[in-house]
Amino acid sequence: MTTIFELTTPALVIDEAVLDQNIAEMAAALPDGRLRPHVKAHKCTSLARRQAAAGHTAFTCATIRECEGMAAAGLGADLLLANEVLDARRVGVLVEAGARVTVAVDSPQTLRAAVAGGVREVLIDVNVGLPRCGVAPDQAGRLADLARASGLDVRGVMGYEGHVVGLEQAAERAGKCQTAMELLIAAHTDVGGPVISAGGTGTYALNTWANEIQAGSYALMDTAYGRLGLPFGQALFVLATLISTTGQWSVANAGLKCFGMDHGNPSLDGADLWYCSDEHTVFSPPRPLGDVVRLAPAHIDPTMAYHERAYLCRGEEVVDVWPIDLRGW
Amino acid sequence: MTTIFELTTPALVIDEAVLDQNIAEMAAALPDGRLRPHVKAHKCTSLARRQAAAGHTAFTCATIRECEGMAAAGLGADLLLANEVLDARRVGVLVEAGARVTVAVDSPQTLRAAVAGGVREVLIDVNVGLPRCGVAPDQAGRLADLARASGLDVRGVMGYEGHVVGLEQAAERAGKCQTAMELLIAAHTDVGGPVISAGGTGTYALNTWANEIQAGSYALMDTAYGRLGLPFGQALFVLATLISTTGQWSVANAGLKCFGMDHGNPSLDGADLWYCSDEHTVFSPPRPLGDVVRLAPAHIDPTMAYHERAYLCRGEEVVDVWPIDLRGW
Repeated sequence: MTTIFELTTPALVIDEAVLDQNIAEMAAALPDGRLRPHVKAHKCTSLARRQAAAGHTAFTCATIRECEGMAAAGLGADLLLANEVLDARRVGVLVEAGARVTVAVDSPQTLRAAVAGGVREVLIDVNVGLPRCGVAPDQAGRLADLARASGLDVRGVMGYEGHVVGLEQAAERAGKCQTAMELLIAAHTDVGGPVISAGGTGTYALNTWANEIQAGSYALMDTAYGRLGLPFGQALFVLATLISTTGQWSVANAGLKCFGMDHGNPSLDGADLWYCSDEHTVFSPPRPLGDVVRLAPAHIDPTMAYHERAYLCRGEEVVDVWPIDLRGW
Repeated sequence: MTTIFELTTPALVIDEAVLDQNIAEMAAALPDGRLRPHVKAHKCTSLARRQAAAGHTAFTCATIRECEGMAAAGLGADLLLANEVLDARRVGVLVEAGARVTVAVDSPQTLRAAVAGGVREVLIDVNVGLPRCGVAPDQAGRLADLARASGLDVRGVMGYEGHVVGLEQAAERAGKCQTAMELLIAAHTDVGGPVISAGGTGTYALNTWANEIQAGSYALMDTAYGRLGLPFGQALFVLATLISTTGQWSVANAGLKCFGMDHGNPSLDGADLWYCSDEHTVFSPPRPLGDVVRLAPAHIDPTMAYHERAYLCRGEEVVDVWPIDLRGW
């Protein structure tokens, strides 16, 4: 039996009991195809396989590399590339090999790239208020017409309310989610097709307009989503060793190359986090040299992208090693 | 000939002319052993080889993995692990195989770990004002005595003025550098040995007390160091493609998984950066769909750690592919 105390630190560790509870909680709320888990949050086909075992066999991807890895892992039954690409040839290779990959388009150019690359199915990506990708809602029908005239199958619409999912007040989140989804529903009226895809971990229970939800963070969680009062626990930590300590502070051997920092510092129970540098996290009050601590990231997605592997743990026992195999582009 | 326009984006690109100019500028200021380049800033043995060709054959590392990769690349003539470890066995393997690796120690426990792991040479790491690792200056001599009594060769001291290197005002940087280095020199009086190792890109020209400088960022640079008026240019960019655009903003396909974000957003000449999400950077004013842009990171070290490889470029021509081969732990 390997224990966490034998791991080379820093190391990503997943609390299997919390992970399984998170997956079960979500599968109960959004069974089967009502959830299209977003793999960008964990970039790990082993974890995706556990989501598939809970009933979710259609997945969302943010990159072509994620689509390729999912297909190679036998999880390519229904992949949505929920992002725009201007070169879809690698997607076409996957489709040709038997994977089902639907691609988001928001312009005539991305639509032409889909056709040229050998993509057969698309969703019309609709801007529902987040200033990022997506066609204006009143242009969605016209783009769908163009897609169909180009020989593509338009499966429906997607519209990500990314400006809403992280709002801490549930009432505000619900209200702004409705505003966003009314735009998406109006666009869908013009576009047609069976799919209305939207949402994230912050709106999975509020977004009753979409018929599939693209949540990803719920499985592992982070401290930003932890503030929203959702029924998901923190399952992912960076394990670190205290390599230096004084009467005022201690230093853990995990730093900026371990944590996505855009949402702020990681957290450690009972500690005041001072700062992170490349390979260090400094906190108080001090603890004994050699102690092993579990730091919780503020943002899960860019945290996973730093690590080659995660260790699946039952308590202090390491029961599996999961490659973070969907990294890169 | 491959050009940057054929690369899959996002992609790390290095402007070879600027890199070579940065390396030449530093080698003129701190020739040969006066610079001990820190590989944590680039994590790339191909780049380290170019630093070695400029005369710097002794290197600084932050992780054991960096030491292992440098030794495997034939660059292990004089490596300093400028960080504390409580398990030095992998360092001992390198030493046994013929690499020279000196390890920083700041406590009896890290000293014992060095002995137990088969390390033969250490530096006494002295706290010079940054609340992180390092023994208190007045305890350095005692730790050196203990090291020598344990059979270790004490090569001298190191003390990183990390609280100083980023200060934007040169006069303040110079004054606080002196304060820090006076602590290090006092400790060195008690410790002895030929090495006084300190400094970084922000203090390479100001720190006249140390006899070797651990600068790393100077080779590729970032926008944080770019504000200090140093004679080094921005050589490292993330190449991205504009995948969506409106009348108000454009979206590049590089985001939080491309950039270390602790120092803030990346920069794009002539643009107002709105925000980054996992795979997107949004900015205004808008530019044409399909345009390729070069985004400059705010912090080089955690940016490099996200990428598998960098493309060395002369203008728009790609002349080499450099693996970022020192990642992980």
